[in-house]
Amino acid sequence: MALVVQKFGGTSMGSAERIRNAAARALATHKEGHRVVVIVSAMAGETDRLLRLAKELAAVPSAREMDALAATGEQVSSALMAIAIQAQGGRSRSFLGHQMKILTDNAFTKARIKAIDATRVTQAVDEGEIAVVAGFQGVDEEGSITTLGRGGSDTSAVAIAAALGADVCEIFTDVEGVYTTDPNVCPSAKKIDRISYEEMLELASLGAKVLQIRSVEMAMKYGVPVHVRSSFSAAAGTLVTHEGDLEQVVVTGVAYDKGEARVLFVGVRDQPGVVADIFTALAEEQVSVDMIIQNVSVEGRAQGDTVQRTDVTFTVAKTDLARVKDSIAEVGRRTGALDVRYDDDIVKVSVVGLGMRSHAGVAAKMFRILAQHAINIQAISTSEIKVSCLISSEHCELAVRALHDGFELGGPVVAEPAGR
Amino acid sequence: MALVVQKFGGTSMGSAERIRNAAARALATHKEGHRVVVIVSAMAGETDRLLRLAKELAAVPSAREMDALAATGEQVSSALMAIAIQAQGGRSRSFLGHQMKILTDNAFTKARIKAIDATRVTQAVDEGEIAVVAGFQGVDEEGSITTLGRGGSDTSAVAIAAALGADVCEIFTDVEGVYTTDPNVCPSAKKIDRISYEEMLELASLGAKVLQIRSVEMAMKYGVPVHVRSSFSAAAGTLVTHEGDLEQVVVTGVAYDKGEARVLFVGVRDQPGVVADIFTALAEEQVSVDMIIQNVSVEGRAQGDTVQRTDVTFTVAKTDLARVKDSIAEVGRRTGALDVRYDDDIVKVSVVGLGMRSHAGVAAKMFRILAQHAINIQAISTSEIKVSCLISSEHCELAVRALHDGFELGGPVVAEPAGR
Repeated sequence: MALVVQKFGGTSMGSAERIRNAAARALATHKEGHRVVVIVSAMAGETDRLLRLAKELAAVPSAREMDALAATGEQVSSALMAIAIQAQGGRSRSFLGHQMKILTDNAFTKARIKAIDATRVTQAVDEGEIAVVAGFQGVDEEGSITTLGRGGSDTSAVAIAAALGADVCEIFTDVEGVYTTDPNVCPSAKKIDRISYEEMLELASLGAKVLQIRSVEMAMKYGVPVHVRSSFSAAAGTLVTHEGDLEQVVVTGVAYDKGEARVLFVGVRDQPGVVADIFTALAEEQVSVDMIIQNVSVEGRAQGDTVQRTDVTFTVAKTDLARVKDSIAEVGRRTGALDVRYDDDIVKVSVVGLGMRSHAGVAAKMFRILAQHAINIQAISTSEIKVSCLISSEHCELAVRALHDGFELGGPVVAEPAGR
Repeated sequence: MALVVQKFGGTSMGSAERIRNAAARALATHKEGHRVVVIVSAMAGETDRLLRLAKELAAVPSAREMDALAATGEQVSSALMAIAIQAQGGRSRSFLGHQMKILTDNAFTKARIKAIDATRVTQAVDEGEIAVVAGFQGVDEEGSITTLGRGGSDTSAVAIAAALGADVCEIFTDVEGVYTTDPNVCPSAKKIDRISYEEMLELASLGAKVLQIRSVEMAMKYGVPVHVRSSFSAAAGTLVTHEGDLEQVVVTGVAYDKGEARVLFVGVRDQPGVVADIFTALAEEQVSVDMIIQNVSVEGRAQGDTVQRTDVTFTVAKTDLARVKDSIAEVGRRTGALDVRYDDDIVKVSVVGLGMRSHAGVAAKMFRILAQHAINIQAISTSEIKVSCLISSEHCELAVRALHDGFELGGPVVAEPAGR
């Protein structure tokens, strides 16, 4: 008799019909003899509606009140889910953040979980009830309602699974699982049956949007097996777990991210501390930086210039570029860069795989594949288990398909998964 | 520096514009140097939308979950109100039932308040904040969310005013106050400046819908002065308070209620216990009865019938009549009534006034006025401070106007009050 945590996201809660469907999933698991705890998100669209109302009233509404407002979305979902389970013959009760209780710090709108009291929910499931817990929300020391910020319900689910010592945390979503790459770009993309936390982290942060990074980090920290699966199908999805369980493959998936713009600081003085100055200054200007690449320095770049100079490339979110351009230029001037150049017509393509650690040549193979398709690499960045290249955005789909084929990730070409 | 509780109902919270307006009222009171606690209802229509969703999922949803669901309406309102107050330069914080905390029994959907902890809200207002409390909701001993049922936000407001020792509880509504009768029926209806709790109770239960009975009962019990006034005007409304403050008038107002149907049990055996049997049986059949009239008994009603028999008239809600007709007929048979007759084409017209206690002849004057207009009285019921007559519904408006004029309640005919 396992303890199973099941999380249903906004699209799984999008209508009475879908809520009934989710309730049936929970009941089926319960009837198999398992203890079941359900975590729910707000109905799709609900939270946005509330936040729009607040924005009508104030340009910058108080974070504490925004959380009290936003948390109602999950409160509605948890009550409706409990009602749907009861209507199908189950016993069920809803628990809010302050009832369970999920203690967080008081960083409203982006609170972090400090402790979870599992007593009442454990008691409920031990008595045969299906406990339904409102995701995304908690409560601070003073009893004020907090929310966990982006991806909060995934994080709630994993944290609660950890607190309860659950055997698995099932994340129900509108796709069949995690894919070797985006099936919309590459029809031969295959569902991955098992993937390690580390690979999932790289895939999540590199643009595969199935699981929020924060929840994967938490799952890794507490060793919670996460099963990403479809709300609309009974098929097994992708199990995210420790690498030890995995068949060793060299490359697990190909990810891409169209959301970044490239910034190039040309001719930065190559002295100790200058690069630190740059990124400290950017942080002070609230510029959030992703990839950072520094090339080796070249002497005497300009005529009569005797200092060692180097080029520094970094990426920022495309949506932030206009807002932070002035700040970036100012930092460039302050740190003595010869020029600052921008390019938002780029894409980051990455191959990810634990196997890279022991298999040489993955990066070389990636570069060769791109070269064979006449795709120019603008910048390269690597970690232990991923290689990322910035390329022109027009080559994105071509590069993804070429790498997916080149690393032999594909299965037979199948229909698109349900819900995409 | 008074402590003022201000309650804004669903129509006062109906849009961003109206919320801003309500926030401005609270701020204006605060700027006059008063400490202010605001109680809010859900935005008009919001709660119904949520309850419809639940009904889609289950014919009889669990009361506990319905309360968790319904309470989100006031949670949204309280956060939005705090945001609106902040946007206009005030300091404000929202408090939910479990935060304040408003302890109730666990009779979900119709909970009764057991205790209110005023500490946190008192502290907030003492520090210069405007505290915004979600109306209608509380929390039981176990921390489950409860709601107070119909008119719950008025009841919250008065109860919180009592707990805080507030100087006045202002109920903002879409009318100017309590009127001597319905201005739609009688254009000369005058706003009442002061009215006693007892009169307000009779008016409220007799069909004047401005204040919920329960909140008036609570105000009377704890001696909370209640000021019913318009959200859309700065004019003073009606102060509901102890009779001692009042100028003594004989009749305060004329009320009517079109919502009842008359049931007549003909020829009930006039023995001790029979009437008790009837109403016990009706209660067991969940038939909710309002007015009860028993005439003196008449001997030998039918041929050869030697038992003393009497007629019993009572009224039930018109909306319930179809549902409970079979139950009523069954009770009639069981208790040996000769016949059961129904009439839903009736209206109850009442005159109310504390002065009746010391002024004889009010009932006689009422009957004479009705007779002068050829209006037939079907049944009469009186209390210390009211006289009610059942008449044919076609005469309703005529009777109200005649009584209003006859008791000289009218002022000059004025335009209808704002918001009607």
